[in-house]
Amino acid sequence: MKTTSGETRLIVASSDIDADMLYATKFWAGDPFIFLQQNGKRTIVLTDLEMGRGKRTAKVDEFVSYNQLEREVQGNARQAPPFEKVVAHFLRKRGVKQATVPANFALGYARELAKDNVDLSTTNGLFWPERGAKTDEELKLIGRALRITETGMKRAIEVLKASKPKGKKLSWGGKTLTSELLRAEIDTAILRLGGLAANTIVAAGDQACDPHERGSGPLYANSLIILDIFPRDTRTGYWGDMTRTVVRGAASEAQRKLWETVKEGQELALGEIKDGVDGMKIHKEIQALFKKRGYPTEIRNGQNVGFFHGTGHGLGLDIHEYPRLQKVVLKEREVVTVEPGLYYPGLGGGRIEDVVVVTKTGCKILSKFPKVLEI
Amino acid sequence: MKTTSGETRLIVASSDIDADMLYATKFWAGDPFIFLQQNGKRTIVLTDLEMGRGKRTAKVDEFVSYNQLEREVQGNARQAPPFEKVVAHFLRKRGVKQATVPANFALGYARELAKDNVDLSTTNGLFWPERGAKTDEELKLIGRALRITETGMKRAIEVLKASKPKGKKLSWGGKTLTSELLRAEIDTAILRLGGLAANTIVAAGDQACDPHERGSGPLYANSLIILDIFPRDTRTGYWGDMTRTVVRGAASEAQRKLWETVKEGQELALGEIKDGVDGMKIHKEIQALFKKRGYPTEIRNGQNVGFFHGTGHGLGLDIHEYPRLQKVVLKEREVVTVEPGLYYPGLGGGRIEDVVVVTKTGCKILSKFPKVLEI
Repeated sequence: MKTTSGETRLIVASSDIDADMLYATKFWAGDPFIFLQQNGKRTIVLTDLEMGRGKRTAKVDEFVSYNQLEREVQGNARQAPPFEKVVAHFLRKRGVKQATVPANFALGYARELAKDNVDLSTTNGLFWPERGAKTDEELKLIGRALRITETGMKRAIEVLKASKPKGKKLSWGGKTLTSELLRAEIDTAILRLGGLAANTIVAAGDQACDPHERGSGPLYANSLIILDIFPRDTRTGYWGDMTRTVVRGAASEAQRKLWETVKEGQELALGEIKDGVDGMKIHKEIQALFKKRGYPTEIRNGQNVGFFHGTGHGLGLDIHEYPRLQKVVLKEREVVTVEPGLYYPGLGGGRIEDVVVVTKTGCKILSKFPKVLEI
Repeated sequence: MKTTSGETRLIVASSDIDADMLYATKFWAGDPFIFLQQNGKRTIVLTDLEMGRGKRTAKVDEFVSYNQLEREVQGNARQAPPFEKVVAHFLRKRGVKQATVPANFALGYARELAKDNVDLSTTNGLFWPERGAKTDEELKLIGRALRITETGMKRAIEVLKASKPKGKKLSWGGKTLTSELLRAEIDTAILRLGGLAANTIVAAGDQACDPHERGSGPLYANSLIILDIFPRDTRTGYWGDMTRTVVRGAASEAQRKLWETVKEGQELALGEIKDGVDGMKIHKEIQALFKKRGYPTEIRNGQNVGFFHGTGHGLGLDIHEYPRLQKVVLKEREVVTVEPGLYYPGLGGGRIEDVVVVTKTGCKILSKFPKVLEI
């Protein structure tokens, strides 16, 4: 693997939302701060507000006071200087004339550094190439995030099983069971394990035909319900991701056939994924299988139907990270989701998703949860 | 107010993490997408996956298919093109030669656009100047986020009141009451109202002397406990923010004096905030008051003590947004937190925070919750 430890590398970002920064420092902060790697030494610049916590938890070699740098720039001026001026001052002090930065490096900072003729190179693909192949420790942490995810899924199934049809709608604990209510049950179970689920999908019927629709309103018996749960472990930053599709009550023949076909598509992918395989080939094979089974991907009445999203995405410190399954040749130790789906308004949507790690000879499924249509 | 509707404006970002994008589109998406404002027309470019949901919820004039643009760039190539090539292609099609972008616009995209000689200007301060002065509708939505916040605070106080000392530790429901357990109670109450609380602080004793430390382990009777709750309303994107400091049991004279002094500092600020006032003047007056009361801000044993963070920050679609109270002259309709604090290891920390909207003649406090030390 290409090593980056000898390069001068610069990140200026909040680690709460920037996974490269979290990866570099193991330190959580909501506001942007500076990370500099120079001659193998890793330095972060923190305000007084963050310094104590940083020194206890950040995995870096050196801590520099932002407030001190700010005072140096401010001099006798009345107002504190803008952040980017302090960034530029710090790099001048360190004699940085060239640095590699992530592609998402802020243009505003880059323009300030350009005044000092600092030469910034952006990376294509991963800023830390090491992030692609997951270490054993990372696989353990992703496993932990998946255990949290499964607890949420288990709670969803429990509540659905305990619900009863009242007319067409499902009723639970004396109330109409809604997407919102079920989502709150899932997210609460996750929260109690230290997970944070921001956009859990509980979408039924035609709502589920928009794969990113979170779902709202009553849930119905005998209807396809997509449960897509992707919490972040707030201690480690790693994400879990899992989807199941269920029917509370009895599935029609059409619902069952759609669900079985999605499952068959996932099995096709799980059987082919291994080091060296072209993800796009797998993606196209699934689409071809679906078409053969009577589920074409096309536009009907101005709306996409069939299988019109990717087969999977990398998972780690970002919920969607390199590699998009259908855009690369897969490599050993990459962790990806495998989540084909089919969506037809009138019938509903189905999606089944698990997480795998690519191996030399195949793949290992990291998520564990039964696939059962009728519950 | 400066109007921006005639300018060509470009954002390429995920609205889940970029408030300017959410403000521009009212559309939530986890992956980056393109927003272009040209000749007063507002366009977004969405993948097939997001198109249906986008058309239903985004407040823009035009929707363009990313997949179509991607096919145009790809031609007969085997692999789909990188995202930034599609961005550049779209701007070429629209004849964009100049655009204003946010300061956090990704350098990687900017470099790709530079190949086409697109002239990008970044903004200083707010990308949408309109975001500074909150509309009546926005004040309502911030109020709603604060109601969610208060529900979390209410739950915290309930649980603390129901807890009993067992030795020095607090016990609740037969278990030791920890920061983690109390945080889960707070966050669960918030979640059930549609709020998402990612980093709720429940920090006691010396832990609280790091103002951004979330807190961990047992909570103790007769100890200062900082409760800092800042959820986001997941429907609207607006944030709430509130801090109270309490003692379960009896406060010592030293704890009470610290707490009363923090409260006095907050009252000083609340009495001075109005349109046209210099925030730094208020910040310095609070520090001076604290010093006079015997609470200097300084470094002891290599650690910051006293009042070493800002007095407040703007609040809206970002948890920390323009204006930082101590960096500007405040203007009517700006919404800011007012949150002085004092921190001394050995004694503990105290912080009290409310949210206000600046008016012509003063400020109006938007958050509502009693300030009581002993509970």
